[in-house]
Amino acid sequence: MTVALDITADPVELTAALVDVPSVSREEAELADAVESALRRQAPHLETIRSGNAVLARTSLGRPSRVVFAGHLDTVPVNQNLPLHRTDGVLHGLGTVDMKGGVAVMLHLAATVTDPSHDLTFVFYDCEEIDFASNGLTRIERELRDWMTGDLAIVCEPSNAVVEAGCQGTMRVEIRAKGVRAHTARGWMGENAIHALERPLRALAEYHPRTVEIDGCLYREGLQAVSVSGGVAGNVVPDEAVLVVNHRFAPDRSPAEAEAHLREVFGDLTVLDYAAGALPGLATPAAQRMVEAAGGTPVAKLGWTDVSRFAALGIPAINFGPGDPTLAHTQQENVRESEIRRCAQVLTRFVSA
Amino acid sequence: MTVALDITADPVELTAALVDVPSVSREEAELADAVESALRRQAPHLETIRSGNAVLARTSLGRPSRVVFAGHLDTVPVNQNLPLHRTDGVLHGLGTVDMKGGVAVMLHLAATVTDPSHDLTFVFYDCEEIDFASNGLTRIERELRDWMTGDLAIVCEPSNAVVEAGCQGTMRVEIRAKGVRAHTARGWMGENAIHALERPLRALAEYHPRTVEIDGCLYREGLQAVSVSGGVAGNVVPDEAVLVVNHRFAPDRSPAEAEAHLREVFGDLTVLDYAAGALPGLATPAAQRMVEAAGGTPVAKLGWTDVSRFAALGIPAINFGPGDPTLAHTQQENVRESEIRRCAQVLTRFVSA
Repeated sequence: MTVALDITADPVELTAALVDVPSVSREEAELADAVESALRRQAPHLETIRSGNAVLARTSLGRPSRVVFAGHLDTVPVNQNLPLHRTDGVLHGLGTVDMKGGVAVMLHLAATVTDPSHDLTFVFYDCEEIDFASNGLTRIERELRDWMTGDLAIVCEPSNAVVEAGCQGTMRVEIRAKGVRAHTARGWMGENAIHALERPLRALAEYHPRTVEIDGCLYREGLQAVSVSGGVAGNVVPDEAVLVVNHRFAPDRSPAEAEAHLREVFGDLTVLDYAAGALPGLATPAAQRMVEAAGGTPVAKLGWTDVSRFAALGIPAINFGPGDPTLAHTQQENVRESEIRRCAQVLTRFVSA
Repeated sequence: MTVALDITADPVELTAALVDVPSVSREEAELADAVESALRRQAPHLETIRSGNAVLARTSLGRPSRVVFAGHLDTVPVNQNLPLHRTDGVLHGLGTVDMKGGVAVMLHLAATVTDPSHDLTFVFYDCEEIDFASNGLTRIERELRDWMTGDLAIVCEPSNAVVEAGCQGTMRVEIRAKGVRAHTARGWMGENAIHALERPLRALAEYHPRTVEIDGCLYREGLQAVSVSGGVAGNVVPDEAVLVVNHRFAPDRSPAEAEAHLREVFGDLTVLDYAAGALPGLATPAAQRMVEAAGGTPVAKLGWTDVSRFAALGIPAINFGPGDPTLAHTQQENVRESEIRRCAQVLTRFVSA
């Protein structure tokens, strides 16, 4: 039996109702059913379709611009943090911050703004918390590309209810030190590959990451070792040691430029994987109006989000949603009711203007 | 059927015969049978006993001093290096250098020196190439202690047919760097434990190992990282990293002194394991006579051998045997026939003097 959601009423109560429908990645069917059913009954002005455990809805009013809202329905695994509980003005529990507060705001807009000034598309998708290939947006981008098209994308991931614009790129590289194996009793006959890691570790210690300002947003880069390994046996000078470094780079650099920079820092290396950053794109008219609606100063998104995916499609994209992103994936995640209401108000004003 | 060995004839031919009786650790029974049978038939002047896959033989002539010879019967695993093959003046194959050349020399002495100037004990033992607890000498020390007693012990491990005296100690320590976990997108909120390994790695790079002279032997110390590990995930600033270092120290230092030294170098650390070194003990009369018989200058033993075990029992102990110890455990191990003959001659002269 499908859970009945009231998507026309208070977005705070809607958040609470969404949290109490568990939706760990790959197990979003019940929540997707509830969202689909609510949109079909309570937002008949929208065209609503289903794609796997994703639900998509949109207006087609011939407005001069289109805004795409995106939010994932899934959560990380349950960690003794369900069902929802409340303290004064705060909702606690799995998914409160990542990102059922944002989903509630989207559903509220979908149901209540029946005469928007932009055409609106709402994408509620699955499997964002697992691998890129499983991410529902990957499937939607492949099969339903026109549902991702627009003049501005707003991904309602938690952003403390301020505009977070663009995001940094990420690249992991492997630095492999070579040596010559020998018995440690005759260490001078060998060449210790672990000792050779001193050079890249010194480079890390001496590294001064850039802080880059783009469209008024500050991007604070980082360079962090994330793995080190080496060793043959307790009495052997090792001939190989491997350091893996994760670089977070501002979106003024392409992945190729970031790689060239890392080669300047470390010399020879192998790129393991990367994801491009996304420029904030706040210079476009739709983005400017959204920034004005939100008030305050836009800030740079720190992590990588699906904002990058829209940016790669040439669509200016921002994060704007209730809650502190640093609480995401923690057992203690929670969201303030006031931020949910503020996001709903800001976005209602923006799409009604 | 027991293999027949002629232990009275040429020690080079005897080495060849021993090599062609495979005797990987724990599988020494056939070779032990052959050695026991040969000693009983061809060296009736000796008291011969069996202990597991070890064979022990000795004179009891009431001489004023006793020399104990020790050699292990086992080899490391076969590595496409059996059966024996010969090139001009060289025997090639598993066990040629480690240490059937030395065992052949011992059997030759046992059979041919029937009227020695010292009482003689010969210990042919098992499982030296595996763990300390399985080592046949550990059992013999426990159950047949008087068979290890004497005024000088000569372990016939390969030593290039020169006297190698004493041996270095070895100690493994663990240096654990701590940090604070964080997402790499917000690296400044964490503290990278892998980065903190720069300090001990710099200490290793700047370390100048001592070379210590004792009784004319030079002991060259060493300090080598043998293992490094750390890392949580590709996007996490790691909160722990571990470096393991192996220190080889000259026998003028006790393990406690070596540990104190390492604490000066690295600060906080944990000792994982250690084995004390052995002083060369060349000042004793029996050792002096052996050094004279061998001619040349004694050198320090680099690796750890069962010499240390005798030293711990208060018995001066040296290595003296045919072959290059750096070839031990390599697929290409080999021994020069001339070194086998030289060792047999030197030792015959020493025990007959």
